[in-house]
Amino acid sequence: MSIKIKSVTDIINKYDHFIFDMDGVIWTGGQFIESGVNGVKHLIEQGKSVYFLTNNSTKSRQSYFEILSNIDIKTDLEHIYSSSYLTAVYLKMNNYKKAFNLGVTGITEELSALGIKTRDSEEFKDNQYVTYDIFNSIQPDEDIDCVVSGHNPQFNYYMLCYASLCIQKGCKFVAANPDSYIKVQNRLMPAGGCIQAILERATGQKSLLVGKPSPTALEVIMKQNKIDDKSKVVMIGDNPETDIEFGWNCGIDTILVTTGVTSKEQAENVKTTYVCDHLYI
Amino acid sequence: MSIKIKSVTDIINKYDHFIFDMDGVIWTGGQFIESGVNGVKHLIEQGKSVYFLTNNSTKSRQSYFEILSNIDIKTDLEHIYSSSYLTAVYLKMNNYKKAFNLGVTGITEELSALGIKTRDSEEFKDNQYVTYDIFNSIQPDEDIDCVVSGHNPQFNYYMLCYASLCIQKGCKFVAANPDSYIKVQNRLMPAGGCIQAILERATGQKSLLVGKPSPTALEVIMKQNKIDDKSKVVMIGDNPETDIEFGWNCGIDTILVTTGVTSKEQAENVKTTYVCDHLYI
Repeated sequence: MSIKIKSVTDIINKYDHFIFDMDGVIWTGGQFIESGVNGVKHLIEQGKSVYFLTNNSTKSRQSYFEILSNIDIKTDLEHIYSSSYLTAVYLKMNNYKKAFNLGVTGITEELSALGIKTRDSEEFKDNQYVTYDIFNSIQPDEDIDCVVSGHNPQFNYYMLCYASLCIQKGCKFVAANPDSYIKVQNRLMPAGGCIQAILERATGQKSLLVGKPSPTALEVIMKQNKIDDKSKVVMIGDNPETDIEFGWNCGIDTILVTTGVTSKEQAENVKTTYVCDHLYI
Repeated sequence: MSIKIKSVTDIINKYDHFIFDMDGVIWTGGQFIESGVNGVKHLIEQGKSVYFLTNNSTKSRQSYFEILSNIDIKTDLEHIYSSSYLTAVYLKMNNYKKAFNLGVTGITEELSALGIKTRDSEEFKDNQYVTYDIFNSIQPDEDIDCVVSGHNPQFNYYMLCYASLCIQKGCKFVAANPDSYIKVQNRLMPAGGCIQAILERATGQKSLLVGKPSPTALEVIMKQNKIDDKSKVVMIGDNPETDIEFGWNCGIDTILVTTGVTSKEQAENVKTTYVCDHLYI
């Protein structure tokens, strides 16, 4: 049974570290969510540590830093954790050299920043039709050793074939974004989890998950920010399958907000520490 | 434990009705399989009833009839059962009027032949990039009441968005082809099951399956051809998940051939009545 709270101020003294999902909490479908923006600002003003953790792999951390700066949310680049960045950290740690990027530029930028090369699916955005001959002519670059999937609004079948052939020749398959969809004006727009699902079906291979709900992100956040007490950390998000599940997987408390993909009615059935309709009024 | 047979002649006296999968049995990746073609011809010469049952929804029955005629396989159009045709039969029976076709022309032709209108994803093949604004501007035709997925080598994200919005507004979702892949020169090319998987993930809705392994096809074949004894029917195919599973679901015997997606080694672990490396030598 989750506790209903009216505002983030209700629990502000219980935690020192607040990890925010962005899409569905701070903005949704290209529009800012006032209560989310103000909740973040209030916590920063009160001297709390605020981190941003997103599964959206379309933008680099620098891009998020600029968006947050533009709405007067004062943070550090180092407090922004995107699944693209976490993917780059994982690939670097495991010595991968070159990725086929089935996502878009956010992934390329983060990988490049850590010295990992990419071949970008963007290159194939105009390849509309795949015949047997075209399929036979696709020979993935020999030095590609991993495939990264993410949200990609210019995804097409040619890209799928290329990625599938990389995995068939033995490449590692990392999913930077398992979110099934993002909400845009009350309709669901397919997201990175859909790209992950089609490639898993096309290859019979499960992907390795680096973004939420994988607990990898919390390990990195705690290590880089010298946090040693998990009970002082809370995750705030709109998605039960990623944000709230992430909290469970990490053993930290969670706040589910109903400003994103989860309605107030649906929230009643989610196992979360707190539920909140407006983060700050 | 399955029985190893050398040729279809080993069991020819046991059955009257032979249902053939085509891809992986009669051809593969655009090349004919001699033993499969000769096996079919031999059965027809011996006066057996031969039916063709495919999950490939890219071609109409007429197209298959022409391909078979060109290699001197003498059959009737009515003996060819494609999942496109079965989809059309299902939609007609259930009074659906207009489909968004996420597959290609084979589906359109069969639906049209039974008086069901379509809007075709082909129309969106050049729509490479979907922004929030573009997504918001997509308004599915009001009279569309079902979505049909199938193999589509010009599939793109715009088509996925359109189909997802149709299902979000309440359309029925029928998968004409659940095959994950087709084998092309020893590499796997993503097929209709991948399109089915991405749309299921994008909507959280399971599709209704009309093709193999759904037993619908056998009901239609038995009814239309006045077959009343299942023990006289055998299914021949290369795919454990569709062809052989279809046999189990229908309660009929099966022959697994190793000329398609299943290797000789893999065949050892498949629960089928018979295994055969070459249908007829």
